[in-house]
Amino acid sequence: MYELGVVYRHITRANREATDQMAALGSATVHEAQGRVGLLKPYMRPIYPGTQVSGTAVTVLLHPGDNWMMHVAAEQIQPGDIVVAAITAECTDGYFGDLLATSFMARGARALIIDAGVRDVKELQKMGFPVWSKAISSKGTIKATLGSVNIPVVCAGMLVNPGDVIVADDDGVVCVPAANAAKVAEAAAKRESFEGEKRAKLADGVLGLDMYKMREPLAAAGLKYID
Amino acid sequence: MYELGVVYRHITRANREATDQMAALGSATVHEAQGRVGLLKPYMRPIYPGTQVSGTAVTVLLHPGDNWMMHVAAEQIQPGDIVVAAITAECTDGYFGDLLATSFMARGARALIIDAGVRDVKELQKMGFPVWSKAISSKGTIKATLGSVNIPVVCAGMLVNPGDVIVADDDGVVCVPAANAAKVAEAAAKRESFEGEKRAKLADGVLGLDMYKMREPLAAAGLKYID
Amino acid sequence: MYELGVVYRHITRANREATDQMAALGSATVHEAQGRVGLLKPYMRPIYPGTQVSGTAVTVLLHPGDNWMMHVAAEQIQPGDIVVAAITAECTDGYFGDLLATSFMARGARALIIDAGVRDVKELQKMGFPVWSKAISSKGTIKATLGSVNIPVVCAGMLVNPGDVIVADDDGVVCVPAANAAKVAEAAAKRESFEGEKRAKLADGVLGLDMYKMREPLAAAGLKYID
Amino acid sequence: MYELGVVYRHITRANREATDQMAALGSATVHEAQGRVGLLKPYMRPIYPGTQVSGTAVTVLLHPGDNWMMHVAAEQIQPGDIVVAAITAECTDGYFGDLLATSFMARGARALIIDAGVRDVKELQKMGFPVWSKAISSKGTIKATLGSVNIPVVCAGMLVNPGDVIVADDDGVVCVPAANAAKVAEAAAKRESFEGEKRAKLADGVLGLDMYKMREPLAAAGLKYID
Amino acid sequence: MYELGVVYRHITRANREATDQMAALGSATVHEAQGRVGLLKPYMRPIYPGTQVSGTAVTVLLHPGDNWMMHVAAEQIQPGDIVVAAITAECTDGYFGDLLATSFMARGARALIIDAGVRDVKELQKMGFPVWSKAISSKGTIKATLGSVNIPVVCAGMLVNPGDVIVADDDGVVCVPAANAAKVAEAAAKRESFEGEKRAKLADGVLGLDMYKMREPLAAAGLKYID
Amino acid sequence: MYELGVVYRHITRANREATDQMAALGSATVHEAQGRVGLLKPYMRPIYPGTQVSGTAVTVLLHPGDNWMMHVAAEQIQPGDIVVAAITAECTDGYFGDLLATSFMARGARALIIDAGVRDVKELQKMGFPVWSKAISSKGTIKATLGSVNIPVVCAGMLVNPGDVIVADDDGVVCVPAANAAKVAEAAAKRESFEGEKRAKLADGVLGLDMYKMREPLAAAGLKYID
Repeated sequence: MYELGVVYRHITRANREATDQMAALGSATVHEAQGRVGLLKPYMRPIYPGTQVSGTAVTVLLHPGDNWMMHVAAEQIQPGDIVVAAITAECTDGYFGDLLATSFMARGARALIIDAGVRDVKELQKMGFPVWSKAISSKGTIKATLGSVNIPVVCAGMLVNPGDVIVADDDGVVCVPAANAAKVAEAAAKRESFEGEKRAKLADGVLGLDMYKMREPLAAAGLKYID
Repeated sequence: MYELGVVYRHITRANREATDQMAALGSATVHEAQGRVGLLKPYMRPIYPGTQVSGTAVTVLLHPGDNWMMHVAAEQIQPGDIVVAAITAECTDGYFGDLLATSFMARGARALIIDAGVRDVKELQKMGFPVWSKAISSKGTIKATLGSVNIPVVCAGMLVNPGDVIVADDDGVVCVPAANAAKVAEAAAKRESFEGEKRAKLADGVLGLDMYKMREPLAAAGLKYID
Repeated sequence: MYELGVVYRHITRANREATDQMAALGSATVHEAQGRVGLLKPYMRPIYPGTQVSGTAVTVLLHPGDNWMMHVAAEQIQPGDIVVAAITAECTDGYFGDLLATSFMARGARALIIDAGVRDVKELQKMGFPVWSKAISSKGTIKATLGSVNIPVVCAGMLVNPGDVIVADDDGVVCVPAANAAKVAEAAAKRESFEGEKRAKLADGVLGLDMYKMREPLAAAGLKYID
Repeated sequence: MYELGVVYRHITRANREATDQMAALGSATVHEAQGRVGLLKPYMRPIYPGTQVSGTAVTVLLHPGDNWMMHVAAEQIQPGDIVVAAITAECTDGYFGDLLATSFMARGARALIIDAGVRDVKELQKMGFPVWSKAISSKGTIKATLGSVNIPVVCAGMLVNPGDVIVADDDGVVCVPAANAAKVAEAAAKRESFEGEKRAKLADGVLGLDMYKMREPLAAAGLKYID
Repeated sequence: MYELGVVYRHITRANREATDQMAALGSATVHEAQGRVGLLKPYMRPIYPGTQVSGTAVTVLLHPGDNWMMHVAAEQIQPGDIVVAAITAECTDGYFGDLLATSFMARGARALIIDAGVRDVKELQKMGFPVWSKAISSKGTIKATLGSVNIPVVCAGMLVNPGDVIVADDDGVVCVPAANAAKVAEAAAKRESFEGEKRAKLADGVLGLDMYKMREPLAAAGLKYID
Repeated sequence: MYELGVVYRHITRANREATDQMAALGSATVHEAQGRVGLLKPYMRPIYPGTQVSGTAVTVLLHPGDNWMMHVAAEQIQPGDIVVAAITAECTDGYFGDLLATSFMARGARALIIDAGVRDVKELQKMGFPVWSKAISSKGTIKATLGSVNIPVVCAGMLVNPGDVIVADDDGVVCVPAANAAKVAEAAAKRESFEGEKRAKLADGVLGLDMYKMREPLAAAGLKYID
């Protein structure tokens, strides 16, 4: 269960260079590189397509229909952070719009990941502030109940610790523990470096069956071709 | 329960000027301005992004898989209306396509809000006829059973009376009772007028915590900062 | 139940000309033309808008979280085919990305229809390889268990036989049995040919009520107008 | 949209005798008898099986996570009433437990129909107070915001007016407009009276095909038997 | 796609003895025994608990909201059959109640498996006619459109051929191809016969870790114990 | 993100007396007593009704379709524990049946809480081993991939630490942090002690409006009675 009513001012952010490197590698490659774990549920979708970011998590826990703690979180943002917002119960209300985005951008935030709804999506796109959310909703929120900032939270089924790396693009949102950032970035870069050659071969008509030497294991598993 | 098989030819439409003013204010601001009520469920999404409309509701009640009453509704449309379509049971069929849209546009309709599916979405976008719907589906419908036109209907969880104001954009769809149109438009415009100054302050790095004077109530609620 | 571990190398593809003709007619018209059947469930959505294809089905049955058979399917693709992928249980993992798309395109595939997730959606859009899927997910898959290729499969609730025609666009995905291809293409083209005249009349303000002669049957059904 | 903050003390309840007669007829028969309309969405389920009730609706509109108006509604209950609770947005919280049930029973309520959650289900079963709900949840609610009592509400997709007849059993919940109570009760009773004879015939092995004389229309529709 | 408007009068039913043997073995054991395939989606639930059946499938394809073909199917039932009903699109209407159950029982049917809703659940329980369904609903259906009987159908995501074995209990519904009935029954019985000894050991406190010799493979996979 | 491949052998269990006291108080009272937090999502339902338990959490993290770690968890169970099973991705497979239940009971486990499916529900009820789950499914699992035991897990949206108190009954499942056990048990007991008097008053016809002195605040909030 969550600790309520607290703001941790000092968190250990993942290595900056490794964090920044992961945006270009993308969520799918990073996800593979750390052993196919860390993905937030695929209902988390970008509110507009084409953006690709990575950053360090500032976490915020909110109550259904109440975005008070968003303002508390804003103060804890440092340049290069991504705010990760969890809610104590299912909610699709619009917790975040162009005003809060203006504030977050002024603090240096790169994106918002929220397991609820947002609004002003057209303005957010114009401003270039990317958001991954569960819903879009005009429904505003009140400011009445304390949550917390920079505690471990569960966002879209994934445990996110403050300082963890978040990688998000059109394919989804992946979380990398801060301690693993350098290792995962390296593994992801390595993985990426092999892809060009493979792509060229496949484009030439070489089959994955041959390139990956699958014919033998498939036969061993009992695959039968019928003419 | 619904009255079936009737068409009310005379409905009291909301004040035209107030109605038309609300498109630019947007669904989120209008929703706030009338006290955070009136939103259709957020599963209602535009079939293409970037449109923003307001208009007076012509309502139509349809049966699952049957769009006969759409044609009856067409005749009741006046310039500046938005058709609000409810179904007597859950259905995702494609009730509406480019032909009906042509007819609706010829009558002066500004949009369709439908708690079901539509089709020909590429053509509808080309024609510039906006639709907010629950689904997109190639599945056509039959013309066999009577519903009603211009009775109160429940669309996506919201009670809509004929003549009410509908405001719809990328954030969702809001209904304003006809009698409240002027009052809500005024409140929304006032709300909007304050936003520019706030935005400028936030962009300058002023925190919402200070701008909205939240520090004291947060402390009173027991918020603790931990270093 | 499915036959597992088999690849049928020879399938009877639908008539090529009829198949190719259906892309331009679109899924909604084809669906109507064959009697309002054959639609995959409307949760199947294009990963990017604006594409319109038709082709002959190469089917593949996969296990949850396992895309091994995708490589086996690649070899069975002939120019003009569309791969239709079914999963033995619900799964949203990302079975398919830019490398497999490169391979499929090299073989002449026109699209992928998959009752699960895909990834690399930005790259797939750049490459111009259209996909209709249930989900988008960064989550990769393993290669461990045999499925089958070119057996009858159930994809998004619809039985698809290898060689059937698939028509897919922004409105959804429709399957036409191979044996009916010519007949359905003809019926769809005929249907389409009537639409221009109707559209012109409706644009001129003629009501569907009059154009389709609905007033009498509506009155017979008991419709009452109330002033 | 809903009128908020009001309690209508005087409502027109449906005819008592007709109302009471419908419990034994059951929701399915009553639903048929009034033309297959009036059913609340089938996600509304009894919290324990085996109960069958009818009564006149006292309606209450609640906000998400707030059951304040339940206490206001209690005072408006008269013997033979069924409380019908709608929420202004989706919510599964437990609005109702054994204490409120004690109060409702003391006032003469026969059941609760609620488009949200309830708790204390074991105690409710022991007390013999039937509830049809969307969810069961331990999560309690606050008492902070005004809704309304005895206004028209939308509960599980159905418009319910105060005073309407509610019929609920293991098959679901049906609403009959107060004005139609006698007519529908009569039609349902008539329907029921024919069933005994039909059941006896079918039990003897007579086929519905023959009893309902379906063979000819089936053949006319083109049904083919293949040996 | 489905063949519509046909009734196959002669189907090849699975071996009777093998079919009948599977009820006692249960859906979970049969599912394991045939290689963990053949399960209908787990949203298929018994309308009342405690029943366990097996039988040979008579299949029926129905349209949304239309149960006409149920009567056609009744005539094709032979003692020991289980009716498997698929719908051409998602529907939760109540297709089946006590009258049809009376008819099905008179023909010797053992159960109904339906990818839609049923009603009269209290009566069905009293009659002892088991049903596995997706929903329970008071909403009746019409009799207007032809489907088919004894064609291959997709029910709750599974392809069921007429004559296949259906095994259903509180854990779910499994389909076994007719041709595999004897083999699967034997494998399931064998599986079952080993369970008594295992159960006794586990009840004595022997751990699965030791009984199944898992400690070595777990260590090999890298499992670490931390004190 | 989760730590994989580890088993923590020593965990700090909540105070035994406080833990055991909470079963009788019930999940709703405990949930209120700790400030309306700690509830697992209400889709978690008992597989059979009427059971009420509390215990200390042994946590286990599993992969989709793989129950290998259940056997590893069994060894870590001490009398009075409740096993809380989380899955790394959505899954409804049947991870647990009568054999594992036999083993868990032999170790002293009181219940299983699992964010996936179970099977052998009839046998589990006969054995008296209670389970709260997301699904029931005949589909078995494999034993191939390492998860972890006694790490913090997210089960049905709630963060559960090993050693926390779990309270589960027909109303749902609540988690109390180990450190708060005594305090919450006391608060819950106090809450419970007031209920008898309230119940008696309400049964006598006293309204909550008067007993809780709500009339004044309701009037202050603007509630209007209309005759």
